[in-house]
Amino acid sequence: MGGNQAEYDIAIIGTGPAGISAAINARIRNKSFILFGNADLSAKVERSHIISNYPALPEISGSELNRRFAAHLEQMDIEITSERITGVYNIGKYFMLLAGQKEYKADAVILATGAQTVNEIKGERELLGKGVSYCATCDGNFYKGKTIAVISDNKESEEEVDFLAELAEKVYFCPSYKTDYSRENVIRLPGFVKSVNGERHADGITLSDGSIIAVDGVFFLKQTVSADVLLDGLEMNNGSVAVNRDMSTSVKGCFACGDCTGRPYQIAKAVGEGNVALHSAVTYLAENKGKKE
Amino acid sequence: MGGNQAEYDIAIIGTGPAGISAAINARIRNKSFILFGNADLSAKVERSHIISNYPALPEISGSELNRRFAAHLEQMDIEITSERITGVYNIGKYFMLLAGQKEYKADAVILATGAQTVNEIKGERELLGKGVSYCATCDGNFYKGKTIAVISDNKESEEEVDFLAELAEKVYFCPSYKTDYSRENVIRLPGFVKSVNGERHADGITLSDGSIIAVDGVFFLKQTVSADVLLDGLEMNNGSVAVNRDMSTSVKGCFACGDCTGRPYQIAKAVGEGNVALHSAVTYLAENKGKKE
Repeated sequence: MGGNQAEYDIAIIGTGPAGISAAINARIRNKSFILFGNADLSAKVERSHIISNYPALPEISGSELNRRFAAHLEQMDIEITSERITGVYNIGKYFMLLAGQKEYKADAVILATGAQTVNEIKGERELLGKGVSYCATCDGNFYKGKTIAVISDNKESEEEVDFLAELAEKVYFCPSYKTDYSRENVIRLPGFVKSVNGERHADGITLSDGSIIAVDGVFFLKQTVSADVLLDGLEMNNGSVAVNRDMSTSVKGCFACGDCTGRPYQIAKAVGEGNVALHSAVTYLAENKGKKE
Repeated sequence: MGGNQAEYDIAIIGTGPAGISAAINARIRNKSFILFGNADLSAKVERSHIISNYPALPEISGSELNRRFAAHLEQMDIEITSERITGVYNIGKYFMLLAGQKEYKADAVILATGAQTVNEIKGERELLGKGVSYCATCDGNFYKGKTIAVISDNKESEEEVDFLAELAEKVYFCPSYKTDYSRENVIRLPGFVKSVNGERHADGITLSDGSIIAVDGVFFLKQTVSADVLLDGLEMNNGSVAVNRDMSTSVKGCFACGDCTGRPYQIAKAVGEGNVALHSAVTYLAENKGKKE
């Protein structure tokens, strides 16, 4: 931990409608903030053919709505930091956010990480940090010259597959999307991975056809990980972040909004919750900031 | 109660952003519904010079946003019923809504009545139904040939002042807005009304200068009345409707959204809550409708 930590009032994680709405209001309320997410905004919105229930914009395509969201951000000089946050640590007086090797400090955090689209598989959660990793940058170096499995749900992460393949001797690759990715030491697996095996440390995976492959580690490269994986101790409710009416969570100073708080998965709900989360974070900062450091 | 009652799955009260959002989703979910409110939509939105935090429509004027809301409703063939709902009665199996002498039945109700902008004065709530009324059409006939006070916060209700002045012998009129309204038997009061007086029935009002005027009844013609005045037994929280995360209220089958549920008073919050309230009402109907009648 050195002097290279950037410090903010608020860190917003996610650039779907909820994160965008939070960021717009953070700018209006004149807070220092950083917005982490995909510069292309929500892929889920982008893929929507026609959205008919975002009031005042009838019959808009998802890509056009994303274009307008981007224009709104640009008009307010809001930049997106395209780093994947791999962990949020509640240090008590503030939050430390890790993006690979980089560190960011924020007094309040707004989670707008979206619905977890990919279910966890058996052994994944149990062996997380024990041979199972969500972050190539963070943990890749542990597997130099070893054999690993990489399970990915998005083409964007293929850069990370490259990175891992440069380190590991052998990579078993199991993408859940169509791709013609290939590389000398990367072996494509048929079907899907049913479980991660191991007692105190991951030692293999079981495929959908029942076959078992021995590995030293397993990487899940997901667009979205469950929020309680990002932030330890976050209370969940049926797989969603448990929130109060003001979008506060069980962790003081941490707020959540959008699909990660549960159904209905709706753009209008997300922008509304992002707005409320930011207002609650501002109230929280006013009450707590002076007392913090 | 005759055969002239119109019946709906859902009655939505209010045509601000929350009610509009609920109605749009009611249409999409193919429910039968009626939307009560002002055909000119929200006056509060209309008066907003520039709105900068409705995501995807940066720097939009309130009147332009209302124009777009209206276009969205029109594009979906959603009509506004411009009747003022004066009471909602929970009959157990359904709700009965009164608009003056007219009755409407609905299996679920969504309250989107906005923030109560005018504070109640001393005696108002205590004597409601005992000489204090919010509805000229409902109660005007009790005051034929009598002396009444009329307190109004909106020019639109001057038609009702006319109606009351035709019935009553003398009307003391106290508008909280600028108006050149005049009529032979209508006496304009200076200042404002501090309290309604009376033990078991209203018998006078006290003005801001301390003078007391004897009256037989007092009419408050408000744009918005507190939701628990509309629907008896509705649990409130600091003057707002108490709601759960799914926008359900303490009254089964009744949902609330928008400014009437409390701060922040934001358009994005309102459209989000309207969306959620409608989805929750649809779930409620699916679980309860068959069992109702």
